[in-house]
Amino acid sequence: MRVVRVRYRNTIFYGTIDGQTVRPLSKDTPVEGPVPIDQALVLAPVTPTKIICLGFNYAEHAEEFAHDLPDEPVLFLKPPSAVVGPGQPIVLPPQSTHVAHEGELAVVMGRACRNVSAAEAAPYVFGYCCGNDVTARDLQKKDGQYGRAKGFDTFCPIGPWIETEVDDPGNLVLRTLVNGEVAQQSTTANMLFKPLDIVSYVSGIMTLMPGDVILTGTPSGSTAIKAGDEVRVEIERVGVLVNPVAEAEQAERAEGDEGDEESEPPLQ
Amino acid sequence: MRVVRVRYRNTIFYGTIDGQTVRPLSKDTPVEGPVPIDQALVLAPVTPTKIICLGFNYAEHAEEFAHDLPDEPVLFLKPPSAVVGPGQPIVLPPQSTHVAHEGELAVVMGRACRNVSAAEAAPYVFGYCCGNDVTARDLQKKDGQYGRAKGFDTFCPIGPWIETEVDDPGNLVLRTLVNGEVAQQSTTANMLFKPLDIVSYVSGIMTLMPGDVILTGTPSGSTAIKAGDEVRVEIERVGVLVNPVAEAEQAERAEGDEGDEESEPPLQ
Repeated sequence: MRVVRVRYRNTIFYGTIDGQTVRPLSKDTPVEGPVPIDQALVLAPVTPTKIICLGFNYAEHAEEFAHDLPDEPVLFLKPPSAVVGPGQPIVLPPQSTHVAHEGELAVVMGRACRNVSAAEAAPYVFGYCCGNDVTARDLQKKDGQYGRAKGFDTFCPIGPWIETEVDDPGNLVLRTLVNGEVAQQSTTANMLFKPLDIVSYVSGIMTLMPGDVILTGTPSGSTAIKAGDEVRVEIERVGVLVNPVAEAEQAERAEGDEGDEESEPPLQ
Repeated sequence: MRVVRVRYRNTIFYGTIDGQTVRPLSKDTPVEGPVPIDQALVLAPVTPTKIICLGFNYAEHAEEFAHDLPDEPVLFLKPPSAVVGPGQPIVLPPQSTHVAHEGELAVVMGRACRNVSAAEAAPYVFGYCCGNDVTARDLQKKDGQYGRAKGFDTFCPIGPWIETEVDDPGNLVLRTLVNGEVAQQSTTANMLFKPLDIVSYVSGIMTLMPGDVILTGTPSGSTAIKAGDEVRVEIERVGVLVNPVAEAEQAERAEGDEGDEESEPPLQ
């Protein structure tokens, strides 16, 4: 099953996608009948409470960066404010001169869990989607900690849907293309730590909540992206996530047209 | 004004605290009249979408760790799952043999903002509270990235309330005491980057949301804590945050009695 989150006539809801048609998942959704996908805006498939990322989970990427292979997963976080959906632009911040794509398999949690073993982990996973751990490479090197370099708004494209039926997430071909040219190509079989082992490891540290996202690391081949590029993360049996790249100024002009997806009331 | 978040008879609401009495902030709260504070459970004052932390924002702490003084704030994130309120235990994870307190001034955002200058920032801040950036020092050194070392459940005590009237957050005495003995003592005047400059800096990277928390860094004197200890973060004009320290097993036994504060429905 492929689960999308869409906005259709000012209602945001989850639906299943079959070909060109979205059917609401819940009977309480105030939308009658199936909706043609081209009449809906496909949003990021979840709104996570946290996004946990792995560094150096492919030996080839660690070698590229002359980084020792970790004996345990190395974790860092991206803020939920960085999430964008398919088709939304990755906005290049003026603070960086080297922004790079990192195509990754994303695990989407379905149920809260804490301290689960790898063997117990599968029922807590809702499904998988494509992710892009966009990184300001220059700031990553300067800061040491990754909070800024990987935390800019729009630096976490995920989507386009959640594929709930993936028999073996540790054996999927993963490719990242920039303007149609292959930049990254590997398979999740090359991961040092496999998806369900990662879920177990993370759940031994922090309680995972429904909708939380784990980005499982990127293979070699990450390259710099520039305004006007199109970045495409393709994962076998999961989906294809496409995002354009824009300068901050371009993106802010476009934002005026579209309005905020969800606005938050002030605390008081 | 001091704003607390409490649970009283299965209703969670924000209130103002005056001496021993809590008054609901909203007229829509289904609680009649003021509530004696000792009949309510004081919760963490906010449920942030993200917690942004600064590394090495006091020269004395950077020197202690032989770390160069940063020329820009160094940012990392703690997950919302790490938040606990006043009185709740800091639980020592079995993965670490050296867990340390880091008493800090916490900024609580009141309104969404992006790209605000320091001069514009004050109206976006709701107020200030005490925070403790609890850290597994051994894992921090081993991992390099701080996602695990600072991300364990209960590693982000905040509270006890939000003080909305702080004229100069850059001039407050801050002390951390363990079992009544002073371990950390400094003033926020010793920060390299001041609170409103930090809000401006962070907002130039990521959109800040209502309830988001910024932990502004810790001064020197962080020490290891052990089960049975009581950690007390005192900030002049802001408040006093007290948390006991417990072994994981102790805490899990106690959890059975109390139940979950807020349970989340599964994604589907």
